[in-house]
Amino acid sequence: MSASAVFAIGVTEENKNLHLIEIPRRAVGPNDVHIDIEYCGMCHSDLHHCRQEWGETKKPSVPGHEIVGRVTAVGSAVTKFKVGDAAGVGCFVDSCRTCAECKDDLIQYCEKGVIGTYGNKTADAPGHTLGGYSQAIVVDQDYVLRIPDNLDLAAAAPLLCAGITVWSPMKHYGVKAGSKVAVLGLGGLGHMAVKFAKAFGAHVTVLSRSPSKSKEALDLGAENVLITSDDAAFKAAARSFDFIVDTVSAEHDLAAYLSLLKTDGTHILVGGSPVPFDLPAFALIMKRIKVGGSLVGGIKETQEMLDFCGQTGIVSEIELVKAGYAEKAWERMLKSDVKFRFVLDIKGSLNKETVVDI
Amino acid sequence: MSASAVFAIGVTEENKNLHLIEIPRRAVGPNDVHIDIEYCGMCHSDLHHCRQEWGETKKPSVPGHEIVGRVTAVGSAVTKFKVGDAAGVGCFVDSCRTCAECKDDLIQYCEKGVIGTYGNKTADAPGHTLGGYSQAIVVDQDYVLRIPDNLDLAAAAPLLCAGITVWSPMKHYGVKAGSKVAVLGLGGLGHMAVKFAKAFGAHVTVLSRSPSKSKEALDLGAENVLITSDDAAFKAAARSFDFIVDTVSAEHDLAAYLSLLKTDGTHILVGGSPVPFDLPAFALIMKRIKVGGSLVGGIKETQEMLDFCGQTGIVSEIELVKAGYAEKAWERMLKSDVKFRFVLDIKGSLNKETVVDI
Repeated sequence: MSASAVFAIGVTEENKNLHLIEIPRRAVGPNDVHIDIEYCGMCHSDLHHCRQEWGETKKPSVPGHEIVGRVTAVGSAVTKFKVGDAAGVGCFVDSCRTCAECKDDLIQYCEKGVIGTYGNKTADAPGHTLGGYSQAIVVDQDYVLRIPDNLDLAAAAPLLCAGITVWSPMKHYGVKAGSKVAVLGLGGLGHMAVKFAKAFGAHVTVLSRSPSKSKEALDLGAENVLITSDDAAFKAAARSFDFIVDTVSAEHDLAAYLSLLKTDGTHILVGGSPVPFDLPAFALIMKRIKVGGSLVGGIKETQEMLDFCGQTGIVSEIELVKAGYAEKAWERMLKSDVKFRFVLDIKGSLNKETVVDI
Repeated sequence: MSASAVFAIGVTEENKNLHLIEIPRRAVGPNDVHIDIEYCGMCHSDLHHCRQEWGETKKPSVPGHEIVGRVTAVGSAVTKFKVGDAAGVGCFVDSCRTCAECKDDLIQYCEKGVIGTYGNKTADAPGHTLGGYSQAIVVDQDYVLRIPDNLDLAAAAPLLCAGITVWSPMKHYGVKAGSKVAVLGLGGLGHMAVKFAKAFGAHVTVLSRSPSKSKEALDLGAENVLITSDDAAFKAAARSFDFIVDTVSAEHDLAAYLSLLKTDGTHILVGGSPVPFDLPAFALIMKRIKVGGSLVGGIKETQEMLDFCGQTGIVSEIELVKAGYAEKAWERMLKSDVKFRFVLDIKGSLNKETVVDI
């Protein structure tokens, strides 16, 4: 299959709001899989990237790294996929493949720098990667995921970033049956943390500032909700948890949450506060606590997660929206007004007629 | 053996400098071991405690929790020790014995509060524990350590705090043969970290601000010294280490050191900076790094360490000083002017004639 042009929504030098553009996709090489995109989840990173909140970006910028669709062509050397398969692409489309991390299925920590699905350098036109807010994508088979047939494709899309971002550290740091797990932040990542922790047999508490999220938390399967603005309840919960899965990307008081951990507890950071935390050494020393980070997940473990989801029926809770709603969806994301992840209906609404509402 | 009075050096309400006092020791109960103290190591905590730098303390204060000596009496139910045995007492002399931590040989994290060797509440007169800058001590056999016969007693004393404080986290966080270990701070703790890491088969680098400590570091067995004030060398060492053993108790730049860790590296805090660190979330997230604390060690693992030291001949590097030199030794400790631990010659110099030089 030769190089093609497809419709996408993205931002350009001339127009900083999302709008319809045409982008190139490379010819299908021997190891490539061509995917017609059906759905794409909307991650906060998409917005940060397009609005250049994490630094200047190359234009056009086309975000989206929670991609699911159907295989429409494969290269001559492709063995893992065939035309018609449900397939997914997450946060990464390439890596060096030679460093210790790549060899250890930890491409997200590639020493030479993993190639993100959008905004990273590539040999393809226009020289940087372009993401899933687009009709199609061409990706090396080693970076493409199989989506189990029984899963709703739209609801599976957020597994590819939100899902794996909490799955990977919970597996790595040892969440298991009987673990006492607190989930901080009940958004796209947090709600998946609740679902996975429950599926692992853990006892789950959602930490929430206001009682308004209690019902949602319990509906997702949490056993308990701790209202963190209730000082007495917060103090009473000291030494309660083996793990805190911290998905909050806004500034917050890490040391206060550490008081909730038991001896040998682990505070898992996946949210990435924009300002450094204050970390008192004695908070870690006196209970042998650790604070550990984690970035998304590798291809192998993402496939393991998807297979597990196929077996257990776990998917994300989503609001499916049309491509033209993308900017409005971002505005609602900024207010945490989404339960729990927006997914763009690419197949049903992205075409040459698409107009993005501002 | 009935209750007794013994000479000690400590501080009182009337005299805030170390000076000779008499203190009571309880009668030897059925489970007790009476130890005539021969040597006591000098830890920074001793000084902080007596100078009330960590809060107000009960008087008299008698510091010292690196205690070695000979058993001179045992209670009727004592099975672990007999008169004449070499014995040691470290940082703790009791704990609740019923919490999960105590049952798991982690008495240092006892939920009800471990009883430190000095300054903690006890039923014995005068109502708080009194440490090893004294002629004798009476301790429950479950909190007494066996000192291997082949070790020099004076040089073994610092194993009971400085040694176990670095042994425990290196074992817990997984330092092993082939690990790349950096040791930050080459004092009482740091020099033991070098010795133990080498004994575990790790590759050891000492991180030092100035080249002046290079020879000492290499003499202790380190393969390498990284001069941290050399910006180019520091940058070139990025992603070099699996572990950093951070023994520095002064304020320092945690984030800068995290750059030296590899993917999945661990920064071990045992030093306890007095002000919170600045911890940028992304420093942990981008390499799946963890920062973990650790406090001294339990009785079981302290015995394992001592047995290992007996097999390998590892002891501390010490400067043996007389009891009358204790205040001057503290002043030198504050300037890091000691290689690498002061040990008081209790047996040879603490008696009714002792005068502490100011």
